[in-house]
Amino acid sequence: MDVTVAIDCMGGDHGPHVTVPAALDYLRRNGNVNIILVGQQEVIAAELRKFKADGEPRLAVQHASEVVSMDEPPAIALRSKKDSSMRVAVNLVKDGTAHACVSAGNTGALMAISRFVLKTLPDIERPAICSVLPALQGHTYVLDGLLNIGAEDIKGNEVVKGAAELLRASGLNFYGNVEGDDIFKGTTDVVVCDGFVGNVALKTSEGLAKMLSTYLRDEFNRNVLTRLAGAVALPVLNAFKRRIDPRLYNGASLLGLRGIVVKSHGAADRLSFRVAIARAVEEARGGVLNHITEQMSVLQEGAA
Amino acid sequence: MDVTVAIDCMGGDHGPHVTVPAALDYLRRNGNVNIILVGQQEVIAAELRKFKADGEPRLAVQHASEVVSMDEPPAIALRSKKDSSMRVAVNLVKDGTAHACVSAGNTGALMAISRFVLKTLPDIERPAICSVLPALQGHTYVLDGLLNIGAEDIKGNEVVKGAAELLRASGLNFYGNVEGDDIFKGTTDVVVCDGFVGNVALKTSEGLAKMLSTYLRDEFNRNVLTRLAGAVALPVLNAFKRRIDPRLYNGASLLGLRGIVVKSHGAADRLSFRVAIARAVEEARGGVLNHITEQMSVLQEGAA
Repeated sequence: MDVTVAIDCMGGDHGPHVTVPAALDYLRRNGNVNIILVGQQEVIAAELRKFKADGEPRLAVQHASEVVSMDEPPAIALRSKKDSSMRVAVNLVKDGTAHACVSAGNTGALMAISRFVLKTLPDIERPAICSVLPALQGHTYVLDGLLNIGAEDIKGNEVVKGAAELLRASGLNFYGNVEGDDIFKGTTDVVVCDGFVGNVALKTSEGLAKMLSTYLRDEFNRNVLTRLAGAVALPVLNAFKRRIDPRLYNGASLLGLRGIVVKSHGAADRLSFRVAIARAVEEARGGVLNHITEQMSVLQEGAA
Repeated sequence: MDVTVAIDCMGGDHGPHVTVPAALDYLRRNGNVNIILVGQQEVIAAELRKFKADGEPRLAVQHASEVVSMDEPPAIALRSKKDSSMRVAVNLVKDGTAHACVSAGNTGALMAISRFVLKTLPDIERPAICSVLPALQGHTYVLDGLLNIGAEDIKGNEVVKGAAELLRASGLNFYGNVEGDDIFKGTTDVVVCDGFVGNVALKTSEGLAKMLSTYLRDEFNRNVLTRLAGAVALPVLNAFKRRIDPRLYNGASLLGLRGIVVKSHGAADRLSFRVAIARAVEEARGGVLNHITEQMSVLQEGAA
């Protein structure tokens, strides 16, 4: 199946300087995919010329005059920027022109626009955000969104307790409560947590991984002998680095919508953003929306 | 100053098999410290004989007939186990026999017993738990306890917002909000978060560190060549391992009490528990209670 992905080129800390070359990198490496670059036409065109890619047949440009800024309140982005690159990219998914869209922009705005434009799948009240992380065994999907269920009047622990009861009664293969370290142990395929806690877990992990790699480099740079040891160990260290490269885990899915929306890290670089594009294509090919719809109806039947 | 530390020998996953040898290790390496081992006399005596340390003059044993189990509800431990090793160790701090106590037991029970027996310092309503973590620059103290302030009717984000306002108005050197990765960047000396979030951050970090070291070992064990590289790099890798060894960061302080109480990780091994003892001694020597009292009165004056 040929997959078409709409890319919000203006989103993220680096905008088209990252999103456009990442899209080109992706196309160069993968067949059966078309990309629609959404954003300010002149800016995108300049970027394409820079990479001598203005003639690429699998690429289209869709002009959008406005840009949602990274710190813009979601409600403002939703109400007053109808021609933002983010909104237009999501519209392309809505009207069937694209199978999926990818944005490195403002998370809150992307969520608000996606919900408003695409709506949620049957029996799903609000979408969740799903990230993937490496684990000792395979991967762990971290699904955050619990807070969205609406828990204004109960404490964090009570939200978790209440959610556990719901999950236990749901007919899903619910393992039970897990702790932070279970994410990387790979104890379960999916860890569900609220958005705040999920953000802390991901950001803390990112910070720790960076600190550890700095420490490791420091130790190998300590003196002539350690530098020699580092040279000998370099291929191994590089293999290690590749295996834990956080850029390879970029791309969080907004799940539960009637369309595929992938949120890239705002600070994503070219490789990182390409990984997010790959994730969107994979979800489109895997028919993730059909899977969710089917499973939801099975769960509803079980509950009825 | 000679410091006396009371140790709850029965607490933690391994009880006296870890706490007693850790105490002996500590005494062997440090002068001007006395230790009171609290727990079931026969069990402790047997452990001391095993290490031929029953004659150690800086060591005393204080019998306590009961043990607080790791999963016991704090209220039960507080009300019905008046002769638990945990309670007796805290009592020794209360009556001035010991300057500090260390326990690897049930966190909730330790908090409840410490609050009940020791009470809090002036103007402090509830104690916080303070852990120390390595950072790119120095260390970061993670202070968790915000949820204790009482936030039954507001959302996590609102707790954080409200706390930020209080901190901003407090006269403290408040940096502003930080994110998970700032813990390991060392952006601030202290990161304040609620107990639930703090626990997730610490446990997630623990899990990630373990996964990364497993990955690193895997890469060096891949084949003969990588094993050779590993042999060459071994001193550097060991230096790295020592630097990030989580056992060297064991020991969380229950701050705000009228006495020093250090909580060791329940799964602590001998080295790890020794580190927690060292932390208790350091706090006693540093006069941490006086510092807190003084700073609190300065803050109260500022507020008045």
